[in-house]
Amino acid sequence: MAFRNLDQLPAYAALKNLAASAVDLTRPDIITTERISKYVCSNGEFDLLYGTQRVNDDVLEALQQLADESRAVDQFLDMKRGQVINRIEGHDSENRQVLHTACRDLFTESPCEPKATAQARQELDKLRKFLGDIDAGVIVNSEGAGFTDMVQVGIGGSDLGPRALYHALSAYQVAGRRVHFISNVDPDDAASVLNKLDLSRTLVNVVSKSGTTLETLTNEELVRAAYVKAGLDPALHFVAVTGAGSPMDSPKYLRSFYMFDYIGGRYSVTSMVGGVMLGFALGYAAFEKILRGADMVDKAAEERDITKNIPLLMALLGIWNHNLLDCETLAVLPYSQGLIRFAAHLQQCDMESNGKAINRQGDFLPYQSGPIVWGEPGTNGQHAFYQLIHQGTTVVPVEFVGFRESQYDQDILIHETTSQEKLVANLLAQSLALAVGHKDDNPNRTFPGNRPNSILMADKLTPQTMGALLAIYEAKITFQGFLWNINSFDQEGVQLGKKLANQLLDHLSSWRLDGEYTGMTSDPEGWALLQTARVIRK
Amino acid sequence: MAFRNLDQLPAYAALKNLAASAVDLTRPDIITTERISKYVCSNGEFDLLYGTQRVNDDVLEALQQLADESRAVDQFLDMKRGQVINRIEGHDSENRQVLHTACRDLFTESPCEPKATAQARQELDKLRKFLGDIDAGVIVNSEGAGFTDMVQVGIGGSDLGPRALYHALSAYQVAGRRVHFISNVDPDDAASVLNKLDLSRTLVNVVSKSGTTLETLTNEELVRAAYVKAGLDPALHFVAVTGAGSPMDSPKYLRSFYMFDYIGGRYSVTSMVGGVMLGFALGYAAFEKILRGADMVDKAAEERDITKNIPLLMALLGIWNHNLLDCETLAVLPYSQGLIRFAAHLQQCDMESNGKAINRQGDFLPYQSGPIVWGEPGTNGQHAFYQLIHQGTTVVPVEFVGFRESQYDQDILIHETTSQEKLVANLLAQSLALAVGHKDDNPNRTFPGNRPNSILMADKLTPQTMGALLAIYEAKITFQGFLWNINSFDQEGVQLGKKLANQLLDHLSSWRLDGEYTGMTSDPEGWALLQTARVIRK
Repeated sequence: MAFRNLDQLPAYAALKNLAASAVDLTRPDIITTERISKYVCSNGEFDLLYGTQRVNDDVLEALQQLADESRAVDQFLDMKRGQVINRIEGHDSENRQVLHTACRDLFTESPCEPKATAQARQELDKLRKFLGDIDAGVIVNSEGAGFTDMVQVGIGGSDLGPRALYHALSAYQVAGRRVHFISNVDPDDAASVLNKLDLSRTLVNVVSKSGTTLETLTNEELVRAAYVKAGLDPALHFVAVTGAGSPMDSPKYLRSFYMFDYIGGRYSVTSMVGGVMLGFALGYAAFEKILRGADMVDKAAEERDITKNIPLLMALLGIWNHNLLDCETLAVLPYSQGLIRFAAHLQQCDMESNGKAINRQGDFLPYQSGPIVWGEPGTNGQHAFYQLIHQGTTVVPVEFVGFRESQYDQDILIHETTSQEKLVANLLAQSLALAVGHKDDNPNRTFPGNRPNSILMADKLTPQTMGALLAIYEAKITFQGFLWNINSFDQEGVQLGKKLANQLLDHLSSWRLDGEYTGMTSDPEGWALLQTARVIRK
Repeated sequence: MAFRNLDQLPAYAALKNLAASAVDLTRPDIITTERISKYVCSNGEFDLLYGTQRVNDDVLEALQQLADESRAVDQFLDMKRGQVINRIEGHDSENRQVLHTACRDLFTESPCEPKATAQARQELDKLRKFLGDIDAGVIVNSEGAGFTDMVQVGIGGSDLGPRALYHALSAYQVAGRRVHFISNVDPDDAASVLNKLDLSRTLVNVVSKSGTTLETLTNEELVRAAYVKAGLDPALHFVAVTGAGSPMDSPKYLRSFYMFDYIGGRYSVTSMVGGVMLGFALGYAAFEKILRGADMVDKAAEERDITKNIPLLMALLGIWNHNLLDCETLAVLPYSQGLIRFAAHLQQCDMESNGKAINRQGDFLPYQSGPIVWGEPGTNGQHAFYQLIHQGTTVVPVEFVGFRESQYDQDILIHETTSQEKLVANLLAQSLALAVGHKDDNPNRTFPGNRPNSILMADKLTPQTMGALLAIYEAKITFQGFLWNINSFDQEGVQLGKKLANQLLDHLSSWRLDGEYTGMTSDPEGWALLQTARVIRK
């Protein structure tokens, strides 16, 4: 059955009509305690409170129809069962399965589980053995000492997701273990990390699916040179996560872990891309809890009733705000300092997946696809960009994320409330303030309100809830791609810049070899840009 | 003379006409080497390359007229001379001067310098003495040992700008000195920082202009409690930066530094808000270089010819993209890993300044004011959200920032190019790729191009160029506020959420005192939100 564009689904026309008279959240009879307790969706660890979205039962019914008509859940099931959905009909494309869910669909035996699940189990077994060998002092440095630090060398999906989770879960770190990240081809990124490390006690985890990523290979060489300079043997320190058979699949590594072509980089946190580093930092058991949390959500996402399926409901509310109420961006604002890098991960996961302009038949879309996603933790953001969210000329839909308990339980009672209570009170107050607004005689103290938002709330940010949160967003993004009728799993948009950069670098290296290169600072008016232009326009 | 709205300036109508047939950057005759070398503006350390913006000489001429008609430069001069420009005519407002420029306008004597300059000199003298006493072992802990670490406790302007500069300049740190930040009221923020510190060797710098910021006072108490628990006397460790006469202006601090009501939090990096911490981390001389770099830009910003004034030109190009070409957001993409927190600083500086909906007469604006600002360092972003920037359904104007040399000079030659060259080549390639696009038989490999961007380029990220970069954006934001006819210096939009949070916290503390509080986890369906709704709707 052919996929249809969003605007070809019958429910879309109904939603257009409903959008013209969407709920006004500033009306005094709208935000009631009844509404708030009614518009709650709970899946396992998380509650989604969406009473502060501009919806009512009619809108929810039409969104349910939209989901049904798009066959979003069926497509999700097809994905999990291994159908080749990473493709564009009638055009050269990646033609791959999309099976990041198989990395965690392993806690219940299933007669029809895809081959990917067996591969995930195998890699997990290797990981458990590897971490056990480190703990047991089997894997040690040349002087017999154990490893305290790990450097993750990777970029994009091999950096942002793993880094976000490492920051989020630092409260659960194995004592005496630290992880550092080198991602950028900027040599200062590596220098600032390497200069503060005892390399002799450090493992280096080089992560690249293709084994050909410019930044990662360059940084690996840079780090290897530092080891050699320090008189250390890289063979005792370097491990790899890569595709089987890639140029990096080599016996020069202490251990090699595999990822597979059916796992996209931005969906790879729960594969070995995140597993090796998170296992080292948090222990194997904690990594397994991340997988369990994600698996619970992957299963909850199979529910067809949108009011019982958090990721599907978030996907639909996102489309309601973006396509029907014309909001161009989405702010994700976690009230947890640990989630400081979560928005950066989402920027990749969401914008690289759904920042597309053609559908799965290769036709240009007649509507907007993925929004611009951005955000910083609250309460910090309240003292920064919330001014614009409350009183600016642009409406920014917000997804708040919060937790009822702190991670460290090192809290203080001031004026009879704890810091954690102050944190959550601020989250709740912001959600309501955005919705209801405030009229004032002073126009500068007037808040228009009617600004849609929702709250994802769990008891505590743990490995399990982190896994669930990750999977909620992965599934939300995937559902939105199905609804927009786009391929969320390729990234052709990164190719042109890469091609032009390589052309310029080819010229640079020839000029250097020919002795013509005089340095980037020799022409302050954009020497290299001029050269690029010549290269491109030649 | 009354301020006029942007759309009342005669040049605005001309620009509307020009926008209807704006330059198409994908036309093969547009991006030429001549154009790239012509559209360059240089101020001191930086070059702005704007040949990849959708402008031509006609547009630039109209933008010049717009600047002249708005009296933007005159308003900037009025600001620097101490006029009370933080106000809304006819309504209760802050009614303050705006004199962050006075923090650095001190390298040349001026007969008419504002009182603020004398106050800045006085605080700098105190800072130099303080840092000298630390270096000389005059300021030591109870055991006579010196201080290696500093914790900055502050939020918003007392956190984001200082933190951005600390990261950007870590290559210049005094050996053996480190700085840490506690900002969020999330108790895990403080716990994760405090747990890894030797408090006995740590100074705590508490920063709040008003001396009443909830997060900062709470975190100060939390940190003080940790000192007391460790048997240490806070009087030997805590310094303060606050307004004279604020509740924090107290002899209980080892030293107190002042900031003044004419410096807004988001413009306060070059005041003692950034000075104490940056002076500790980098040394006094480096902090003075930051001020010098900023001062050079403040002076360059007085130039009336827009093609010779980087911040003014950036302000106008921003308005061209935002108001005339209808782009809602702005991505700032620095090709320097050190600038990883610069976009977060800009989000406050820009969005809190210009995320306003009323003009300086209290009337609602008939056009868009400040854009949504976001970004992450390249090349990292290339492996994340650039997909959307190149091929998404939304056009995102980009401001690239780059440097020709690395900070650490620890580089490696691979395939005859250095990492720094790879970094810059990627920046240049992205700029051109966004502009020129690419046609392909495969629709999924087609790049629409015509996506406006510019490049800010300097030789190296040093204290001086960092000061210049900071001041370029401060002045750009200020000019845009003048053009939009808004007050960029207040932040009434943060008040409503604060008020509602305090109401909820008042109830929480009464419930706790009355024994009615049963914990946030006792009602998974948004206990606290229900209570908030009751409080608000009662």
